[in-house]
Amino acid sequence: MTRWRLTIEYDGGPFLGWQRQDHGPTVQSTLEEAIARMTGERAAVHGAGRTDAGVHALAMEAHVDIAKPLTPHRLREGINALVRPAPVTVLAVAPVADDWHARFSCVGRRYLYRILDRRAPPAVDRGRVWHVPVTLDVEAMAEAATVLVGRHDFTTFRSVHCQSASPVKTLDTVEIERVGEEIHVRAAARSFLHHQVRSMVGCLMLVGRGQWTVPDMRRALEARDRAALGLNAPPEGLYFLGASYS
Amino acid sequence: MTRWRLTIEYDGGPFLGWQRQDHGPTVQSTLEEAIARMTGERAAVHGAGRTDAGVHALAMEAHVDIAKPLTPHRLREGINALVRPAPVTVLAVAPVADDWHARFSCVGRRYLYRILDRRAPPAVDRGRVWHVPVTLDVEAMAEAATVLVGRHDFTTFRSVHCQSASPVKTLDTVEIERVGEEIHVRAAARSFLHHQVRSMVGCLMLVGRGQWTVPDMRRALEARDRAALGLNAPPEGLYFLGASYS
Repeated sequence: MTRWRLTIEYDGGPFLGWQRQDHGPTVQSTLEEAIARMTGERAAVHGAGRTDAGVHALAMEAHVDIAKPLTPHRLREGINALVRPAPVTVLAVAPVADDWHARFSCVGRRYLYRILDRRAPPAVDRGRVWHVPVTLDVEAMAEAATVLVGRHDFTTFRSVHCQSASPVKTLDTVEIERVGEEIHVRAAARSFLHHQVRSMVGCLMLVGRGQWTVPDMRRALEARDRAALGLNAPPEGLYFLGASYS
Repeated sequence: MTRWRLTIEYDGGPFLGWQRQDHGPTVQSTLEEAIARMTGERAAVHGAGRTDAGVHALAMEAHVDIAKPLTPHRLREGINALVRPAPVTVLAVAPVADDWHARFSCVGRRYLYRILDRRAPPAVDRGRVWHVPVTLDVEAMAEAATVLVGRHDFTTFRSVHCQSASPVKTLDTVEIERVGEEIHVRAAARSFLHHQVRSMVGCLMLVGRGQWTVPDMRRALEARDRAALGLNAPPEGLYFLGASYS
């Protein structure tokens, strides 16, 4: 039995998210079915994060245990041939120690959120950005983001379906920059609550369009109440960028 | 009657190209139908370039004559509402002189070609890049590109369906750079032959993977014979970047 680490890219558009579901295709089930066809084994693929429907990944990390002897090349090429036409691709594979766990060994996760900040709706990047048709104040957003950095009770920014044991998380960094017509928000933490990045970005957008002030962001955080959330940003702008391991 | 200049972005994937066709949706027909629903007028939309099926545009220029009085804002918003769900969007509109012609007044056209140069197939950018799974030598490609710059008979790099009066064109620049996992080829000229950019990129790729040398590129150009073409790159990596007017 070999434990394999998989680094995976996917377009979340056609998937019901990462996690296996009874009622439609997910990234996890697509990978598991490809591996089953290749090996005859019903192996579970464990991811570093469980992204929602419509959320993308540029480098999700996962692991899977396979008994059949395989080379890394054969495993990667086999999965990539068998997942077609689903928009998921294995970027890299490597054998890892039996106690290495994509989720539980992970000590850092990074997300990117792309806002298309222009009047015209997206055409080439439809489904890959959040379209905000008014010009946002990026400096105000960056200032409001500093309120969120650090160790806080993020209950306000947490989905009611979140399964985390505690709402207290340490947000390491939030970086905001304008890149052409887009605004990119990058967030890094050991782990995030369910919907935390989208909820933070939704409120940062309110600051950017002048509807919220920096003190409003502070009040929302301190409320520790989902009802104090201004807005949850849609899934299509969110990308799981990468995970790190000690 | 007002002549309007339209700047347009589109994802070429679901279209049979720019030009009106009897057997399916095109960018031109999609825009014309939206304008007809808005104005009741059957106005022709003329583009600076007639891109093939699958080719994208980040800033195609076009013009259309409309009798109904409209503000630029109303025209843009109206088209963008009515073209949905087709992946085409009007970025900007402006009234222009009656003799301004998107195609015939154009004095410069720029294209971008995106190659995804990595082993794994694209997931997030599927249909938006040409996947080349072997590592390409960008310096060799750049050297070979210099052979193409200038005034030449580009018959080798011309589709048999090209309607241009002459195969002689002046290629102003070809720039090649590696951008992360991608290789971007940018080409600029007053005008291009049908398939010229894709044919040049196809041969540059052969140089990049070591199958062709710089002298091979020179021989292909000097052959002035479509049979001397090494490879025509697929449409999905090509983007009409912009047009300029004197």
